[in-house]
Amino acid sequence: MYAACSTVFKVHLLLVPANSSAECRWTCQRAASMDGEPLSSLCTPALVVDVEKVKKNAQSMIERCEKLGVQLRPHMKTHKTLECADIMTGGSRRCIVVSTLAEACFYADHGFDDILYAYSLPFDKVERCAALSERLELFQVLLDHPEALEQLKKRPLRDGRPWRVWLKLDCGNGRAGILHSAPEALRLAQAVAGTPGVALTGVYAHCGNTYSCTGVQEIQAVAKETTNFTLQFMEKLKAVGITCKSSIGSTPSCSHPVQDMAQLSEVHPGNYVFYDVQQSLIGSCSLQEVAVRVLTRVIGHCPHRNQLLIDCGWTGLSLDGAGKLPTGYAMIEGHPNLKLLSMTQEHGRVEPIVGKMDYSKYPLGSLLTLIPYHSCATAMMHPVYHVHSQGVLLGKWTPTRGCFPP
Amino acid sequence: MYAACSTVFKVHLLLVPANSSAECRWTCQRAASMDGEPLSSLCTPALVVDVEKVKKNAQSMIERCEKLGVQLRPHMKTHKTLECADIMTGGSRRCIVVSTLAEACFYADHGFDDILYAYSLPFDKVERCAALSERLELFQVLLDHPEALEQLKKRPLRDGRPWRVWLKLDCGNGRAGILHSAPEALRLAQAVAGTPGVALTGVYAHCGNTYSCTGVQEIQAVAKETTNFTLQFMEKLKAVGITCKSSIGSTPSCSHPVQDMAQLSEVHPGNYVFYDVQQSLIGSCSLQEVAVRVLTRVIGHCPHRNQLLIDCGWTGLSLDGAGKLPTGYAMIEGHPNLKLLSMTQEHGRVEPIVGKMDYSKYPLGSLLTLIPYHSCATAMMHPVYHVHSQGVLLGKWTPTRGCFPP
Repeated sequence: MYAACSTVFKVHLLLVPANSSAECRWTCQRAASMDGEPLSSLCTPALVVDVEKVKKNAQSMIERCEKLGVQLRPHMKTHKTLECADIMTGGSRRCIVVSTLAEACFYADHGFDDILYAYSLPFDKVERCAALSERLELFQVLLDHPEALEQLKKRPLRDGRPWRVWLKLDCGNGRAGILHSAPEALRLAQAVAGTPGVALTGVYAHCGNTYSCTGVQEIQAVAKETTNFTLQFMEKLKAVGITCKSSIGSTPSCSHPVQDMAQLSEVHPGNYVFYDVQQSLIGSCSLQEVAVRVLTRVIGHCPHRNQLLIDCGWTGLSLDGAGKLPTGYAMIEGHPNLKLLSMTQEHGRVEPIVGKMDYSKYPLGSLLTLIPYHSCATAMMHPVYHVHSQGVLLGKWTPTRGCFPP
Repeated sequence: MYAACSTVFKVHLLLVPANSSAECRWTCQRAASMDGEPLSSLCTPALVVDVEKVKKNAQSMIERCEKLGVQLRPHMKTHKTLECADIMTGGSRRCIVVSTLAEACFYADHGFDDILYAYSLPFDKVERCAALSERLELFQVLLDHPEALEQLKKRPLRDGRPWRVWLKLDCGNGRAGILHSAPEALRLAQAVAGTPGVALTGVYAHCGNTYSCTGVQEIQAVAKETTNFTLQFMEKLKAVGITCKSSIGSTPSCSHPVQDMAQLSEVHPGNYVFYDVQQSLIGSCSLQEVAVRVLTRVIGHCPHRNQLLIDCGWTGLSLDGAGKLPTGYAMIEGHPNLKLLSMTQEHGRVEPIVGKMDYSKYPLGSLLTLIPYHSCATAMMHPVYHVHSQGVLLGKWTPTRGCFPP
């Protein structure tokens, strides 16, 4: 009896030379996993994670922070998995930052603690934040407006626990946060610190403006500016008798920290565990350090358009990076003359940057490997990540999805 | 005892006037569902589906096809849910088209049959297609290359069943399919029809080139051309003694069918059940017929940038539609002067198209409603859709995700 398609099949690959037609013969036996199989046994498109690179990227960041003497609070938003969180926290399951309530609950439900929900307090989620604050040892929220403080005052925590609050500063990033130089910022910090049932735990700035940098020098200039604005604010706090933690972060700045950052309490990068083409262009990493790929197969030859079709559309890669790369929406590993020109839901169109397509190099069924422009956006499209070491499958990681728990 | 955050809370809304701060008080009792609650009780960002509009869109297409005398084979790719498939098939759970193996297995596992997997036969998924072909009454694949036929010949189905095959024609769309006018197309059809263990079930063309049309006249010109190219091909088949079905489709062409389409066997639109801003601009529908929205809340005021921040980033909307609308990545219902300028993972930046932002109209916590540019792409970002009738929640639909079953 053949197994139903919803069960997991074990795949035996008879012959899959590089770039040759994938001559798979499926034996329809049920199997608990595909562990031990080569990457080429995966159906495509598939997100694959090189766990050795993940561990190396995580360890490098841990060591960089130890050397600098700041606490690393890794951000979970890129991967949203338990396994990768374990690697990033060195197994402690403590001291993380998340950007959605779904992540906060997911990690809390799996034994993580000391969680900072670094998102301008959403008024529709105050009660759920209260429940987490009352349930965990240390759940922390973030705010950047006096009205958010009013929300917290209306919902005191049980047992005399204080709300643990970080103040979000905008130090030039231009997204969320109260302007570091505005008198309202200091007033809000004082209001938080002075409110019964609420404690000012820290000051938080995200230097997302490092994403427009190219090269270490530019990154470090932004890192230095953000750090200094934050430290200046800490001085103002000190002058009015307030002490608390300070944190800045982004993958570029924490990949190339400046010495001034040693004066901060914490840093909170996230993307570094995967990295991506964007980070390599910014100068955060080398392409060799990028730990994720999307495997895709050739499904069509279109010589009248000088194109290939691949089975990766925007459901497998995301549309992030449009117009940013000479190679289109991604880089195609080992094929620098190929461009991922456009995508629809389940199709990608690939053409040579110069010259005629040599179809003999890309038979139907052959594998191509995409290096994503933005790994956060690409990971988001996949309900499961396939984890490997040196091309041998080790298992699957399942991320949490959605912005709040159902 | 307060419930854990992973359980479902029942939300009691004390006061949520339109565009006012969402003053929610959560009572932390567990509840099986939020049925009966107003839309404003949802946490955001949330994809909401107006089931009355869905039913009306589905019924209109059913009636249009009945009037034309062609079989409707609705495409599932936009929503990927059982509930919406039931509505589109009038409850028959028969005669559908899917674009991924994940969808094929999902529908097969839930009692659907007569499924066409309308995707150029992926060589890595032949064995799973064989299993579906042997398990269902009628599972059909699609191909556009002689090598795909070779794959089928290598894997004969059990019990003398034939592979049911549709030939994909490119009638001007410029994506997958063999060129309708190429001699190879007729040769491939003959090869399929003449191969033991394989049956030529139909000829299939997707007129995705209607997506570059504006207005009914342009849509109908493409629909007519695609239909005529397909019918000319059917004549060529007839001349060599082959008869089979024919099908064309796209939401624009099937929303405004031309009389020639009555000569086809089937049509296969999909997006029409939700529609979106893109379809309204093409001329497929009115904005009033669009059945989906993304609810979002104001989470930040940035007067120094003349902007609002909302809690919908590309994880809630997708990046589809970039640069296409004067209102940015979406339309903000009831606020034609607002533009969704940019998004990061969980944040959106909104600014007025002209003039200064009137922040008194958009207090922190207030709801805004986004009409998506491309509902297929937006739906894809959500693990669950919240279904309502006239603003009262009725339940949730859970789509299948991924490109193949795990």
